[in-house]
Amino acid sequence: MPSISHKGQQMPSSPIRKLVPFAEAAKKRGVEVLHLNIGQPDIHSPEVAMDAIHKLDMPVLEYSHSAGFESYRAGLAEYYAAHNIPVTKDQIIVTTGGSEALLFAMMACFDPGDELIIPEPFYANYNAFAITAGIKVVPLQSSIEDGFELPPEGAFEAHITPRTKGILICNPGNPTGRVYTEAELERLRQVVKKHDLFLFADEVYREFCYDGTKHISAMNLEGISNNVVMIDSVSKRYSMCGARVGALVTRNKELYDTAMKFAQARLSPPTLGQVASEAALKTPQSYFTEVNTEYRERRNILVEGLNTIPGVFCPMPSGAFYCVADLPIDDSDVFCQWLLEEFEHKGHTVMMAPASGFYAEPELGKKQVRLAYVLEKDKLALAVESLRVALGKYPGAAK
Amino acid sequence: MPSISHKGQQMPSSPIRKLVPFAEAAKKRGVEVLHLNIGQPDIHSPEVAMDAIHKLDMPVLEYSHSAGFESYRAGLAEYYAAHNIPVTKDQIIVTTGGSEALLFAMMACFDPGDELIIPEPFYANYNAFAITAGIKVVPLQSSIEDGFELPPEGAFEAHITPRTKGILICNPGNPTGRVYTEAELERLRQVVKKHDLFLFADEVYREFCYDGTKHISAMNLEGISNNVVMIDSVSKRYSMCGARVGALVTRNKELYDTAMKFAQARLSPPTLGQVASEAALKTPQSYFTEVNTEYRERRNILVEGLNTIPGVFCPMPSGAFYCVADLPIDDSDVFCQWLLEEFEHKGHTVMMAPASGFYAEPELGKKQVRLAYVLEKDKLALAVESLRVALGKYPGAAK
Repeated sequence: MPSISHKGQQMPSSPIRKLVPFAEAAKKRGVEVLHLNIGQPDIHSPEVAMDAIHKLDMPVLEYSHSAGFESYRAGLAEYYAAHNIPVTKDQIIVTTGGSEALLFAMMACFDPGDELIIPEPFYANYNAFAITAGIKVVPLQSSIEDGFELPPEGAFEAHITPRTKGILICNPGNPTGRVYTEAELERLRQVVKKHDLFLFADEVYREFCYDGTKHISAMNLEGISNNVVMIDSVSKRYSMCGARVGALVTRNKELYDTAMKFAQARLSPPTLGQVASEAALKTPQSYFTEVNTEYRERRNILVEGLNTIPGVFCPMPSGAFYCVADLPIDDSDVFCQWLLEEFEHKGHTVMMAPASGFYAEPELGKKQVRLAYVLEKDKLALAVESLRVALGKYPGAAK
Repeated sequence: MPSISHKGQQMPSSPIRKLVPFAEAAKKRGVEVLHLNIGQPDIHSPEVAMDAIHKLDMPVLEYSHSAGFESYRAGLAEYYAAHNIPVTKDQIIVTTGGSEALLFAMMACFDPGDELIIPEPFYANYNAFAITAGIKVVPLQSSIEDGFELPPEGAFEAHITPRTKGILICNPGNPTGRVYTEAELERLRQVVKKHDLFLFADEVYREFCYDGTKHISAMNLEGISNNVVMIDSVSKRYSMCGARVGALVTRNKELYDTAMKFAQARLSPPTLGQVASEAALKTPQSYFTEVNTEYRERRNILVEGLNTIPGVFCPMPSGAFYCVADLPIDDSDVFCQWLLEEFEHKGHTVMMAPASGFYAEPELGKKQVRLAYVLEKDKLALAVESLRVALGKYPGAAK
């Protein structure tokens, strides 16, 4: 049998996936598992989107244009304009999820061996796309103590080499929930401009900002218009993860044309998902207001609750629907497995994502977990209570 | 502004795309363009598939499993069994079109610089996926004179180097319409077995075989079970190109597990397309019988018609819905552009795909074009008539 590829061997297997069999075993024992480990919201998709699918009159389910339906791109351009991001429909490539947008951006900009700086902890699948594209990820540590503030200019400078070709940020952040301030983004802008780097900005959580926090798009940073690629997706905005519709947005014409060649090779993004996404552009503001209120309340229950547990520290995030907590334990991979294998409280246990998967150096996340607040409030309260009890019983408490 | 990648620069731009502005200009002049250039069938998608979309009850448009919905994979396994291809649902990864299946197969099996032998002419986008994966495509010339028969064992042997890691076939063939015989596949099996290569078999046109021609799947070749990856798609089978639903099928567990890591990174194939595809499994046999009859009649009109034009040679294909014709011209890129720019017959002209895009060495396809018979019969007859007139007038006739 021929051997598989080295890239295939390097591909990470997520720490969450290793926990799945233990979660299934827990369910078989009759224990209800509270899933704080996933990014699949429980929020309903907008009715207007599902209606469009139900009423679709399309006798031949055809390809769309490789850049996506023109009408959808025109609608997206209006949506961005309403969010103070002026772009034209010809600066948008509709992609199969944000994932494909990032892969196209990487393929268009990076050669194998080029280096991409990413503040860590970061979304684990960035590693996977980087391996696919042959890119070397250079992690830049941010710290839970200051709520994962963007590292200072000097920290970026210290990691720049002749092979550095770009920086990738996720803002609002997964897994941190951090929303970068104007001052942080100005530091970033300086570095990008000085070294003429690409800046990939994953902004799929744009709508999820709390307490009046204002999201600033990388598309609005002055003087680096040709350097920026915005990664977007409808997955979280409309709770339509299954649509698999995202977007690559850039004002750099050469980059756009190059990314289009990769888009043309795969022919078209999903037609049905685009139909739903185009209709979703008409989602009433009340939907977002309700969703935002719901998430803010959930966040408060979870984060405030976590911080009342002795030895737990969880910075209050301003965006997305995740938080990272520091726990008084030896090893979060072990603790998360123990919760599923050995623990229950009132017939429940908690599943979380060990943070080791969000760090290039897994050791850095050894005491941390990521929690997604995609559950109803009473379940989140129960999850906090369960964690309090669990940490009191866990034999692997931090020395 | 930072420079784009070398891979991006290498990405081919299809000869068809260069013609698009000329087709648009022709339409603006009031000339009706007969599109024989595309692989988007005009056949209606099965009603049962669109019904499932219309009736979908899914309040949250969620991710599916990264390998695709289990129920769909189970249904697909039954479909394959009915086509004499016994596989289990755990040997199937549902992908975003056949394109993604091929990319996953390449990423899982090939390291940058590894060589993949492909009989040419071949589907132009294979080049694009190979560039993405860093693979070196080694073309193996087949010939229009013998209807693009698979080259003999010796021809494969002559192209095998220490870096050769696999062979890719498209059967039934795009662009050739060739359906490989048992004898041809036995030759291929010998080479694969002797050199322990991967065999990627793109079988998305399985249903489109005419005149009693039997399709033999690479999955049924003896003794190379661990070497074969079958690429599949619903795009052509159900005329659902826009669903973007394909499949990677392999009995090689290690390869499967590796491809799954790439599948997990992009989270999930499209949910709505899977709903339609799962429902489409219940498409009545009458649909296929009708479609098959229609295509066979179209093929006969087109290919028999072409062969009555002086100097034109077009082998009669047994499958898919394409044919490649040799024309008495100097350069098919120039001729195809001339048809759109300068020619009209009864208010019509013809758009075809210059074959240069289907050869690694464009010169080899210089006198050839690919024609897709995805139009109604009267339009195909008119297209043949138009070509006859055009070839009489074309100033660049072959010397």
